[in-house]
Amino acid sequence: MSAEEVLENIRKEIIKKSPKEAKIVDVQFEGPEVVVYVKNPEIFTNEIIKNLAKDLRKRISIRPDPSVLVEPEIAKKKIFEIVPEEAEITNFVFDANTGEVIIESKKPGLVIGKEGKTLEMIKKAIRWAPKPVRSPPIQSETIKAIRATLYRERDEVKEILRRIGRRIHRDIVVRGDYWIRVSFLGGAREVGRSCLYVQTPDTRVLIDCGINVACEDKAFPHFDAPEFSIEDLDAVIITHAHLDHCGFVPGLFRYGYDGPVYCTRPTRDLMTLLQKDYLEIAKKEGKEVPYSSKDIKTCVKHTIPIDYGVTTDISPTIKLTLHNAGHVLGSAIAHLHIGEGLYNLAYTGDIKFETSRLLEPAVCQFPRLETLIIESTYGAYDDVLPEREEAERELLKVVSETTDKGGKVLIPVFGVGRAQELMLVLEEGYNQGIFNAPVYLDGMIWEATAIHTAYPEYLSKEMRQKIFHEGDNPFLSEVFKRVGSTNERRKVIDSDEPCVILATSGMLTGGPSVEYLKHLAPDEKNAIIFVGYQAEGTLGRKVQRGWKEIPIVTRNGKTKSIPINLQVYTIEGFSGHSDRKQLIKYVRRLKPSPEKIIMVHGEESKCLDFADTVRRLFKKQTCVPMNLDAVRIK
Amino acid sequence: MSAEEVLENIRKEIIKKSPKEAKIVDVQFEGPEVVVYVKNPEIFTNEIIKNLAKDLRKRISIRPDPSVLVEPEIAKKKIFEIVPEEAEITNFVFDANTGEVIIESKKPGLVIGKEGKTLEMIKKAIRWAPKPVRSPPIQSETIKAIRATLYRERDEVKEILRRIGRRIHRDIVVRGDYWIRVSFLGGAREVGRSCLYVQTPDTRVLIDCGINVACEDKAFPHFDAPEFSIEDLDAVIITHAHLDHCGFVPGLFRYGYDGPVYCTRPTRDLMTLLQKDYLEIAKKEGKEVPYSSKDIKTCVKHTIPIDYGVTTDISPTIKLTLHNAGHVLGSAIAHLHIGEGLYNLAYTGDIKFETSRLLEPAVCQFPRLETLIIESTYGAYDDVLPEREEAERELLKVVSETTDKGGKVLIPVFGVGRAQELMLVLEEGYNQGIFNAPVYLDGMIWEATAIHTAYPEYLSKEMRQKIFHEGDNPFLSEVFKRVGSTNERRKVIDSDEPCVILATSGMLTGGPSVEYLKHLAPDEKNAIIFVGYQAEGTLGRKVQRGWKEIPIVTRNGKTKSIPINLQVYTIEGFSGHSDRKQLIKYVRRLKPSPEKIIMVHGEESKCLDFADTVRRLFKKQTCVPMNLDAVRIK
Ligand SMILES: [Zn+2]
Ligand SMILES: [Zn+2]
Ligand SMILES: [Zn+2]
Ligand SMILES: [Zn+2]
Ligand SMILES: [Zn+2]
Repeated sequence: MSAEEVLENIRKEIIKKSPKEAKIVDVQFEGPEVVVYVKNPEIFTNEIIKNLAKDLRKRISIRPDPSVLVEPEIAKKKIFEIVPEEAEITNFVFDANTGEVIIESKKPGLVIGKEGKTLEMIKKAIRWAPKPVRSPPIQSETIKAIRATLYRERDEVKEILRRIGRRIHRDIVVRGDYWIRVSFLGGAREVGRSCLYVQTPDTRVLIDCGINVACEDKAFPHFDAPEFSIEDLDAVIITHAHLDHCGFVPGLFRYGYDGPVYCTRPTRDLMTLLQKDYLEIAKKEGKEVPYSSKDIKTCVKHTIPIDYGVTTDISPTIKLTLHNAGHVLGSAIAHLHIGEGLYNLAYTGDIKFETSRLLEPAVCQFPRLETLIIESTYGAYDDVLPEREEAERELLKVVSETTDKGGKVLIPVFGVGRAQELMLVLEEGYNQGIFNAPVYLDGMIWEATAIHTAYPEYLSKEMRQKIFHEGDNPFLSEVFKRVGSTNERRKVIDSDEPCVILATSGMLTGGPSVEYLKHLAPDEKNAIIFVGYQAEGTLGRKVQRGWKEIPIVTRNGKTKSIPINLQVYTIEGFSGHSDRKQLIKYVRRLKPSPEKIIMVHGEESKCLDFADTVRRLFKKQTCVPMNLDAVRIK
Repeated sequence: MSAEEVLENIRKEIIKKSPKEAKIVDVQFEGPEVVVYVKNPEIFTNEIIKNLAKDLRKRISIRPDPSVLVEPEIAKKKIFEIVPEEAEITNFVFDANTGEVIIESKKPGLVIGKEGKTLEMIKKAIRWAPKPVRSPPIQSETIKAIRATLYRERDEVKEILRRIGRRIHRDIVVRGDYWIRVSFLGGAREVGRSCLYVQTPDTRVLIDCGINVACEDKAFPHFDAPEFSIEDLDAVIITHAHLDHCGFVPGLFRYGYDGPVYCTRPTRDLMTLLQKDYLEIAKKEGKEVPYSSKDIKTCVKHTIPIDYGVTTDISPTIKLTLHNAGHVLGSAIAHLHIGEGLYNLAYTGDIKFETSRLLEPAVCQFPRLETLIIESTYGAYDDVLPEREEAERELLKVVSETTDKGGKVLIPVFGVGRAQELMLVLEEGYNQGIFNAPVYLDGMIWEATAIHTAYPEYLSKEMRQKIFHEGDNPFLSEVFKRVGSTNERRKVIDSDEPCVILATSGMLTGGPSVEYLKHLAPDEKNAIIFVGYQAEGTLGRKVQRGWKEIPIVTRNGKTKSIPINLQVYTIEGFSGHSDRKQLIKYVRRLKPSPEKIIMVHGEESKCLDFADTVRRLFKKQTCVPMNLDAVRIK
């Protein structure tokens, strides 16, 4: 049966089972959903939709037919007429692909109205489905740009979704054995370029597609694996926005991929931010890059965001569910439900199995689970990190002592995740009077923070509470000052005022953190605090190891030596990864307990050590693959 | 550089370094060799050829240019004129592709002449290179047919060899990591459909390509493995002629393969015999087969026979050497020398690590060896078989007792290997007067025996001695009677004479052995001896287990029950496989000792048990892959 015939059958079925008054205009596959366009969407009760979904075993979405939608400009006017001014509407986002309009306002309660009356009025007047949300306290340029692209190129996006939908719902004939296997194209016995290739007789899926920024000859995944074929790829799944998990995705589109990218919405946005940043830095350093900003845009148009816990068909025989991984905003564990025999595979991506200031701990319960693929960054026997509370105390102590002496504290930091965690620690310390100095934010930290405030539903319960009560939103604290230009940076450097500076990049491999170091290094009053892993060969590692001077290329191209007199501190315990204790606890808590556990994302010795421990403690079958190994799991 | 340019460079080099008087006419790649066609081949001393081969790092073959070769019919006449009649020439084989003529005679000494004088005269007269050999004592129809095909279609064969040669010697650029991995497409944790797929960045090689005759839903290897692509295949290597190692090879040609098949010459011939037999039986049973006899012929034309110990380029980065495996005539261990870093992989195929009556034990010394892939048929802790001598005594005892009582002994037996071993045991017992009755040979046994006598150089030293002294050749003993027709079979069955019957198939799955059983079963004077493994579900297994009657379909289509009253014996110890003791001894004796040993070709428990033993005893890294696993070895 062709995809057209499959769709035609579904169409007939839906029309038969739906109330006539709904006036169905069209039924289409759009990505993983079956979308029903109707003139009177309000006729479809949740009950009807649920039954349809159950009967057809598909995700059903009812949308107003475009012919009934009021033009956005006119719709805006009508909304302003209906909603009282005190609601303070700050923004509209019309999503032509869903027929929804997001109404951002300071008081969303007034957009809803008593018992939803106002919302009803809006709906009737404009036919778009209104989604009132609280205005994010900081505006994100990235999100704005993504929304603009998706709106401007909505026809192309719709075409993409329909093509993807036809492929997902294609009719297949399974002959003989149904097998499942995973090839490790990168990230096995190493950190960087994570890339899993899941294969079954009918489906090919890539989970993560990262790059190793620190290592030029092992920068990209093994696309030379004989089983890899970009034309046959059904789907790409991204667990989170770090470049070692998503850095190559736009490159896939450059080399001919034309299918969907599944991830959470925050991952889509943070990933776009980090990919752009990667391009800019690489260009500045004159390095070759495997794609352009055009490819990043193509990637955005092919991305299908899915929420935690929503099960989605991504091929005729695979269903995907994402679960919170506790690692960075939007980070996910990918759970695949595969084939006739319903085999279950979960891949953790990077996980934190502890409540952090920002996020809830990683999910460890699944409906079913046969094989788990788990990260092992801190898997070795001596990888026990200090408690976070202790690390926080230590950090605040250094900050307070240094600023008290009139010095400046530089914290080179990774812009997504760790920077926001540190902001929360510093904000608390400032409020408690432990130190009294401004905290400057330079590099992409501000923008990454803005994205955090746009997705409160992805934050921990505690943060969610705070972030929407303006007085309490820690990110809006007066202690934080944004450094938005080189001029402003100059001022921070030149002033005598003691301060704290959070700046990217975290390993001093480029970006503003290096700029600050150059100027702060000679003065022994100042301090630098390393809070993350410093890779071999980076400037960060050198400073951390106690080098007494560093060569710097000046503006006129000469090399000059700068003495390092500032105080150097390393504070562990802020990692977004589970340490060994947490990894073991995670395996212990898993429900159900899987038959087989595969270790990846760690140096060779860490993976082997962790596998050995799990085998001994839990009597599990473990496996530590190499890159280019293909492991059959069923 | 294109293949043509590579060849052109070699041409120039050879012409420059060769004596002018040789008159080089052409230089061509033909299969793995560089063939130099010359008008005066005698000018090339072994010294010159050796130096050329060393300089070019290629196998060099000097051949008379076709223009100087005398027409075969005229050549024959001239040879008869030169060689004395007492030499008794029985056959000529002109090989147009090598410029050689094999002269078969009863007294090859007379073809050679004193100090090679006669040979010199022949060479001068006909220009073909004469190869005198002793006439094989039994004529093989299979060999005759293969030689006829290769002669008749010599132009096509030459074209095939040249195309293969250009592919082998293509110029490649190796970028980045050089990795090596092996995918297991069949024969992992099972016996049947053995098939390894070796992959490097530039080469794809299949080693063995068998079928499982006993199991319809697991009959063929996993060609659905995503990395398998028949168009990209560089070479197929066949370790030996059993169908579980070569049964699918003609099917590869049906599905588009057009490259070389490397194996020993006896394997080529036995494989052809067995593939034809498989087709015939399958057709009789109305089963679907994956190829036709035309494909078997295509396979023969693409086969490049290589001798034990000769190292051959099979791709730009892989060299192959075959070594005796001691399992059946022509059986080989495949040793691959791979890539720049010169990594060494050996795959045993099936091995016997003990001198048998026919063959020398498997080779266990290699120039270098990092990974060994070994069969595990009898790898479990209780797989210790009785000594061969004991088994022989027991067999002869049953034969003598049964025939003394006037009964007939039926031995269902596999036609290649085991049948010949038993013939040698029976011949010795008969000579020693242990029994006195004829031994009838039915099915393909006679033909397989003929192929054995055509390749004395592949037999054990002792056998080689015997086979060429007519009085001593055990296969020609008066005790053996060939059953060549159903009429003759009828006579054997109907006569009152006590006798021994060796007949195929070995598991009573069809063929004459079943025919004999039907008629011998009711009489308790008779006996049946099982000397090989009887698979679950076969008639052999049922009889072995003691069933008291068997249903048989008669000629007119009715089902009738036959009582089983004959004596049933099972004698272990004639296996062509190493038992557990021999497998362990083999690993102990390996030189050099490999880093890693991978277990295949055995039921799951046998492979796991053997791996465990090797890990414990020798502290080796072991691996028991599943079908569809791909294991990176470098
Ligand atoms: Zn991460
Ligand atoms: Zn990571
Ligand atoms: Zn065999
Ligand atoms: Zn075998
Ligand atoms: Zn061909």
